[in-house]
Amino acid sequence: MSSTRQTPTRRQFLHAIGLMGGTAAVYNLMTTFGHAAETRFPGPPKLAGARPGASVIVLGAGLAGMLAAYELEKAGYKVQILEYQARAGGRNWSLYGGDKFTEMGGATQTVGFAKGNYLNPGPWRIPHHHRTLLHYCKAFGVALEPFIQFNHNAYIHNSDAFGGAPQRYKSLAADFEGNIAELVGKAIDQKALDTQLTPEDLDRLKEALRGWGMLDKDMRYTKNLRSSEHRGYALPPGGGVNGAPQPSDLFPFDEVLKSGVWGQMAFFMNDEFQTTMFQPVGGMGMIGKGFAKQVGHLITYNAKVTKLFQDKAGVTVTYADTEKGGVTEAKADFCVCTIPLAVLSQIETNLSDKKTAAIQAVPYSNSVKIGLEMRRRFWEEDYAIYGGHSFTSQEIGLVSYPNFDFFKDGPAVLLGAFAGGPGGYRLAGMTPEQRIETALAQGSVFHPDSYRKEFSNGASVAWNRVPWVMGCCARWNEDTRREHYQELVALEDRVVLAGEHASYVGCWMEGALLSSIDAITRLHQRALQA
Amino acid sequence: MSSTRQTPTRRQFLHAIGLMGGTAAVYNLMTTFGHAAETRFPGPPKLAGARPGASVIVLGAGLAGMLAAYELEKAGYKVQILEYQARAGGRNWSLYGGDKFTEMGGATQTVGFAKGNYLNPGPWRIPHHHRTLLHYCKAFGVALEPFIQFNHNAYIHNSDAFGGAPQRYKSLAADFEGNIAELVGKAIDQKALDTQLTPEDLDRLKEALRGWGMLDKDMRYTKNLRSSEHRGYALPPGGGVNGAPQPSDLFPFDEVLKSGVWGQMAFFMNDEFQTTMFQPVGGMGMIGKGFAKQVGHLITYNAKVTKLFQDKAGVTVTYADTEKGGVTEAKADFCVCTIPLAVLSQIETNLSDKKTAAIQAVPYSNSVKIGLEMRRRFWEEDYAIYGGHSFTSQEIGLVSYPNFDFFKDGPAVLLGAFAGGPGGYRLAGMTPEQRIETALAQGSVFHPDSYRKEFSNGASVAWNRVPWVMGCCARWNEDTRREHYQELVALEDRVVLAGEHASYVGCWMEGALLSSIDAITRLHQRALQA
Repeated sequence: MSSTRQTPTRRQFLHAIGLMGGTAAVYNLMTTFGHAAETRFPGPPKLAGARPGASVIVLGAGLAGMLAAYELEKAGYKVQILEYQARAGGRNWSLYGGDKFTEMGGATQTVGFAKGNYLNPGPWRIPHHHRTLLHYCKAFGVALEPFIQFNHNAYIHNSDAFGGAPQRYKSLAADFEGNIAELVGKAIDQKALDTQLTPEDLDRLKEALRGWGMLDKDMRYTKNLRSSEHRGYALPPGGGVNGAPQPSDLFPFDEVLKSGVWGQMAFFMNDEFQTTMFQPVGGMGMIGKGFAKQVGHLITYNAKVTKLFQDKAGVTVTYADTEKGGVTEAKADFCVCTIPLAVLSQIETNLSDKKTAAIQAVPYSNSVKIGLEMRRRFWEEDYAIYGGHSFTSQEIGLVSYPNFDFFKDGPAVLLGAFAGGPGGYRLAGMTPEQRIETALAQGSVFHPDSYRKEFSNGASVAWNRVPWVMGCCARWNEDTRREHYQELVALEDRVVLAGEHASYVGCWMEGALLSSIDAITRLHQRALQA
Repeated sequence: MSSTRQTPTRRQFLHAIGLMGGTAAVYNLMTTFGHAAETRFPGPPKLAGARPGASVIVLGAGLAGMLAAYELEKAGYKVQILEYQARAGGRNWSLYGGDKFTEMGGATQTVGFAKGNYLNPGPWRIPHHHRTLLHYCKAFGVALEPFIQFNHNAYIHNSDAFGGAPQRYKSLAADFEGNIAELVGKAIDQKALDTQLTPEDLDRLKEALRGWGMLDKDMRYTKNLRSSEHRGYALPPGGGVNGAPQPSDLFPFDEVLKSGVWGQMAFFMNDEFQTTMFQPVGGMGMIGKGFAKQVGHLITYNAKVTKLFQDKAGVTVTYADTEKGGVTEAKADFCVCTIPLAVLSQIETNLSDKKTAAIQAVPYSNSVKIGLEMRRRFWEEDYAIYGGHSFTSQEIGLVSYPNFDFFKDGPAVLLGAFAGGPGGYRLAGMTPEQRIETALAQGSVFHPDSYRKEFSNGASVAWNRVPWVMGCCARWNEDTRREHYQELVALEDRVVLAGEHASYVGCWMEGALLSSIDAITRLHQRALQA
């Protein structure tokens, strides 16, 4: 009790600051109070009071489009959604047994997974600070469960290290930290850091190095039971007569460096991948389904938009019915367009040259995901790996282990590839069968005795072959941001764009939702002025 | 496909090694193959063929005792279990609403938690490599769910740092790593490490430092969007017009050192606390209940053992019925005694002087846990903390957040203290009401505006006041191990001890089970010779 200080409550404090300097001041001062700002989500948009009779046409029934429709309808607008696919959700999507998917190029896959198993071709994990998405998941009854992002016991494989043998993350990370700690200790001994730090801080630092890096009393990282506490034992502690543990050998530091484990260590510290993460129970596509329950009555499916024009009277959207044929002109006062840029750039519009240039300026990343159904959970039973990822320098990028139904008998689906860059393009260029063969060949490096033996069936999605997006997500860089971002997101009379591409949270569902809230808030203000 | 090498399968490899050098060789070589040994669990013991008619009396219906009874009965022994409490499970225990608990000293608490909520006074998390426990959980139908051990977004509070303000783990850890990386870079610049590493390795190291520590191009750790990717932003990325992020200020390195964050960083790398961890659905006590379903028919409850004697004819155990009164003498050919040492040392036996000395040599740790039921999950709703622990230098040690029913409305139970050492003794010396007041006062440092306001009711267990164990668990040190461990675990004619105290996996359920398997395996061999 003694050490509890009298402090103003957080709310009192933030309220006082808010009076002085507005939102930015609150954000900045939250940091000093120990609360780094984490989210831009201010709660659902307050759009009360639509202009009487005003209508909005929303293009695309992905998350951005459906959120716009949901909130605009609630505010009193007359809303219609046009969706190219026969399904709502967009890139929020799960493939289940029995699903069919035809990619550009014509290959059709019929998914063979057992009941309850799935592949999330697109988004697959939700950061704890993506509060907009978490808010609507709760509001729309989408149940979430933990996504195991960080698994010390999974593998890292680098063709250039350890003669190509994968090693456990824990052992590599422990040896990286131990060696770094020892090196700093040696630099202190050589007075190399005396100008950087006070003698007091040097003492504190030495204590920290010893504790963090598991150094011995001489500040050396050596083979002993202490270093084995982090990296794993040769023989772990046991029970009874032969219970004493044996320490494990350290890895050579140059091999540890070659493994590139520092890349994974940094990855796990990345804001977007920090624990705790979540996934919907039953597949990521449950979120799209949850949104569609709210706005399904507004959606026209199989509607391929071909033209988007606006004038003083309103917006006219022309679309073809890809199922039954025929072309329709839909009219509305306003338009929220969430069509991915790679597709939108092919649609005829009378948007300004600057807006059009922005739409055309942003390239889309590629990405290939491959799901491999295995007859049993050998990674759990034989390798003690429960969820998380094993990383490889090969094209597949990683093998990721399912985060639900742990310990269950029967088939389960591994993510057998999450490939980008040149490897992603190579995989995308293959037939679905070739992709699976590649995933089996490369993934076998982690589980050589089980991978092919337990394989049952697989499915893959190469995003640059997905007809309704033609890429994975928008990849801004500093130059395109400076030149085109504000043009892209600016309300242009009656039309506003939304989606992950219209955000700084690119490639995340949260970006799509935050962009949507921002877009409809501005559109609502515009509508009230009209 | 190109980089997949031809390797022998793991089983082929291990089989070949096993032929050459036996188990120890396999263990050692598993390490070189990338499989650090993780468990001593060889599968359930193979005890087939009890000596016809032989009987075993098991003292204690905790996990060690119940596992012994289960496997011995399966092997054909006639088994009886004596249990002091009216409940099986021992320290595997959950407190639910309506439960009553009377501690030594006389204070009785009636737990007031809402349905579905609980406190685990003893064990509360299961490492992924505790394969014995995981095996029997599956075998006995105990459902497990992830335990969120590592949460980047929880707090660290140290009275000596930041003027007593808690900070997020992620920001402290990021700044620790960034500063360490910069320091190593400076040491490299000053040629302080040239004798340690080759020029090639120094280049690799610099690349690693830059990537791991989020250094800028000049190898400095500075305030920018790159360091904010790890430590958190002043204003995070958003959507639409105002989507651009703002970087956060770095902490002063001396405050980071004072925070002791390196202790938590090391803790998360500890073998026993590495991800993925698990907990039973519905409370840790579900494991005891699962075991009791198998051996409940063998248990005599409310049996207080007062004497344990053996001679050439067999074992005689004297026990009092604490419920109905009366004293009984039970006889068997053999005995597995799992009574905690602090209690066993008070029971009359004719065990050898050496064994008795061993029983008396091992002190038990203290530990106090306090459960606080809060009216709503403010840590999730207001702080984006989903599971994991906030650590403090105060006596309560930590506040730990529930790992199930995320996002749920209504009351939830925080672990409001997990206190050991002097603070634990101070809390144990208080009344239950005082303990809760202390937990509220100290825990408020993390959640000042909600902690007292949302508090509903609480419960506490101080293990040195628990009559059937009188401590938390056995604390061996190097000296006691050397002098007494083998004496403690040695089979003494017809009696063998088992439990976490008879293992090198002390204070863990896994240690109790491994000890039990080792004990009954030796007892079975003895029985066959008899």
